[in-house]
Amino acid sequence: MQEILSEIITIGDEILIGQILDTNSAWLGQQLSYLGIRVKQISSVSDNKEHILSALKEASSRTDLIIITGGLGPTKDDITKNTLAAYFNCEMVLHEPTLQRVEEIFSTRNLPLLEVNRLQALVPKNCTVIENTLGTAPGMWFEEEGKVYVSMPGVPSEMKAIFSEGVVARIKQQFTMPSIIHRTLLTAGIGESFLAEKIKDIEARLPHYIKLAYLPGLGQVRLRLTGYADDATKLDIEIDTFVQQIKSKAPSYFFGEGDDTLEKYIGRVFTDNQWTLSIAESFTGGYISHLITEVSGSSAYFMGAVVAYDNEVKINKLGVQRQTIISHGSVSEQTIIEMAEGCRKSMNTDYAIATSGVAGPSGGTASKPVGTCWIAIACPNGKTIAKHYHMGNDRHNTIHRSGIVALDLLRKIVDGLV
Amino acid sequence: MQEILSEIITIGDEILIGQILDTNSAWLGQQLSYLGIRVKQISSVSDNKEHILSALKEASSRTDLIIITGGLGPTKDDITKNTLAAYFNCEMVLHEPTLQRVEEIFSTRNLPLLEVNRLQALVPKNCTVIENTLGTAPGMWFEEEGKVYVSMPGVPSEMKAIFSEGVVARIKQQFTMPSIIHRTLLTAGIGESFLAEKIKDIEARLPHYIKLAYLPGLGQVRLRLTGYADDATKLDIEIDTFVQQIKSKAPSYFFGEGDDTLEKYIGRVFTDNQWTLSIAESFTGGYISHLITEVSGSSAYFMGAVVAYDNEVKINKLGVQRQTIISHGSVSEQTIIEMAEGCRKSMNTDYAIATSGVAGPSGGTASKPVGTCWIAIACPNGKTIAKHYHMGNDRHNTIHRSGIVALDLLRKIVDGLV
Repeated sequence: MQEILSEIITIGDEILIGQILDTNSAWLGQQLSYLGIRVKQISSVSDNKEHILSALKEASSRTDLIIITGGLGPTKDDITKNTLAAYFNCEMVLHEPTLQRVEEIFSTRNLPLLEVNRLQALVPKNCTVIENTLGTAPGMWFEEEGKVYVSMPGVPSEMKAIFSEGVVARIKQQFTMPSIIHRTLLTAGIGESFLAEKIKDIEARLPHYIKLAYLPGLGQVRLRLTGYADDATKLDIEIDTFVQQIKSKAPSYFFGEGDDTLEKYIGRVFTDNQWTLSIAESFTGGYISHLITEVSGSSAYFMGAVVAYDNEVKINKLGVQRQTIISHGSVSEQTIIEMAEGCRKSMNTDYAIATSGVAGPSGGTASKPVGTCWIAIACPNGKTIAKHYHMGNDRHNTIHRSGIVALDLLRKIVDGLV
Repeated sequence: MQEILSEIITIGDEILIGQILDTNSAWLGQQLSYLGIRVKQISSVSDNKEHILSALKEASSRTDLIIITGGLGPTKDDITKNTLAAYFNCEMVLHEPTLQRVEEIFSTRNLPLLEVNRLQALVPKNCTVIENTLGTAPGMWFEEEGKVYVSMPGVPSEMKAIFSEGVVARIKQQFTMPSIIHRTLLTAGIGESFLAEKIKDIEARLPHYIKLAYLPGLGQVRLRLTGYADDATKLDIEIDTFVQQIKSKAPSYFFGEGDDTLEKYIGRVFTDNQWTLSIAESFTGGYISHLITEVSGSSAYFMGAVVAYDNEVKINKLGVQRQTIISHGSVSEQTIIEMAEGCRKSMNTDYAIATSGVAGPSGGTASKPVGTCWIAIACPNGKTIAKHYHMGNDRHNTIHRSGIVALDLLRKIVDGLV
């Protein structure tokens, strides 16, 4: 079967001068690979008509599917749409449903509709419009001389929604891809090299058509198995066998697959058991509550949190004894236990998470350097499990890694692994 | 003066399949822009000889300086060096000082020197070797037909060291660059199209050598002015004049420049005035506290927050009257005012922020659809300012946009703009 090749073109100077990272192309690269399409090139070009035209021509000379992001905003430095019309030698027409959507968005937000916003409903005549449910600039699908061109706005959330909801199905209809199967296994609480050591025998036995990739993140490592074959059913069974073998080597670290997250996993367990949760955060500053509440339906099990940055808040809102803080400090086993238990009691929940630590860059001491932290979980049986960690010396990473570690500790407890 | 154009070429599949973000190109884009060189294109290509050759040819047809990263490792999928030798039609020769460095590195680490490591000291005969003080693969500088090509390893730390220590000085010697000046102005609380409408007269008057770009984000738009000229001092003054004119058209929306953020701005104002802050969050679920506490030094002014997801928490921890919630609902002007004032009082702070809304996807009603929200700020003068918004129907965006809107309302209040 013939390989389908793709090129991603991003338009806009902000990537070229390094003002933003090109996360859109990375995401699209993942999605296209998932579909069984090979990304041959990623090209970032400036907001310049001649340059965009030559990039389109070069891309169409080497690939079948050209994905374009950016340059669709209402302001005059956004020139993608007119350039595409020139490329296809085609006039611009008004797309009524898009105009209606734009009008609706502005009226919902009680904002007046400007002429530049009305212009967002103009599209090249030869395109199929793909609705943008999150913004005003629509996606566009073009076919010419056997090649497909897709243009989407550069705002990541809008681009992702258009691609997932409107582009993937059209790509599958247009192209015949080889069978490709991806399985992504999610782990938490184990480093990449330790995980690799545990499963090295299995990795050595993988056939050439099944590849294993390690995708490390803060406190989490994803393992992706990718197989290519003609017989999808057979391949699926074969990959599943390897998945079971891999999981059996370190069962307590694997918690889910695909797009799952620790906070969604916890949400399901709490919903199923009708348990409730509260959180007492010191140095994580609301980040764990933010993760929990990003999950739809979290109001069913999440009661609330106290971000106790100041010690008076720990005392007044969580019932921590002043003497405990004076004797042991706010970053201590004694204080973290009182925070967790005080939180659980005062919010009347089944479980409570508590965190206290030194995020840095200042505030570290010889005995409690930057990155030192305590995490505790108060449980329905009246017991509280408290653990001590070192999270490194970068403030941002310390906060984010601690959030993952706290959720993972809760997961292990509710799953009976701790 | 003629503009110097550059293209960055990255080699390797890990960027194309989205396994890693292309941080090297972003960093190089920043460095080249600072030097006064315009990055015309960034191209990521696969580990394929023919593809690399055509990328080099295309890049040299449109730019003067081609910067190549990646594909210099010892493993067999790294083919950049041989491809460059083929491109320049030139043989490979042993570079003795590099061989000595490689031998030293291996002996220091007590590792045996393999044949693949010895091969790292082979370079195309026409290159000038640029020492890699951090690794085994050297940087290489080529000149041909008035164009310069620089090849560096893809490991970020090695690439950055080679570029800073060995490449920058050579670029300055080889090329005469015009001055380039960037100014990035930060706004909040105004949409891209409304901002463009306000400053369209100024935009129309910009000379051809000063460009204006709109960089939209959730609830925030950055404006970037970029100027190219021979006389840096004159250009600086000219750009500054435009900056002042632009700000004067919508003064209340501009709060900073460059890498500043609303939360850092607020941090400076609160630190300077020795004010304190507390937060009562309902549907934003800890996100505002997270933004505030990501700023180093926030413990000086941020006392804490109550994430009052459940109504009982609003009542018990913030002192909201049960009857207020029964009569008006939790998403109401009356409740938000009691949340803000109760928070300010109970945490004994100068200011308090409160949020309550419907994040969705469920929980909306005809009178309070998904995206409805109230934000209030309780102030030291005893007054509380409450405002009502519609934030759209995407849960993630509603939470993030509301966080920015709340911080912007606080900024306007402390700056005396509301």
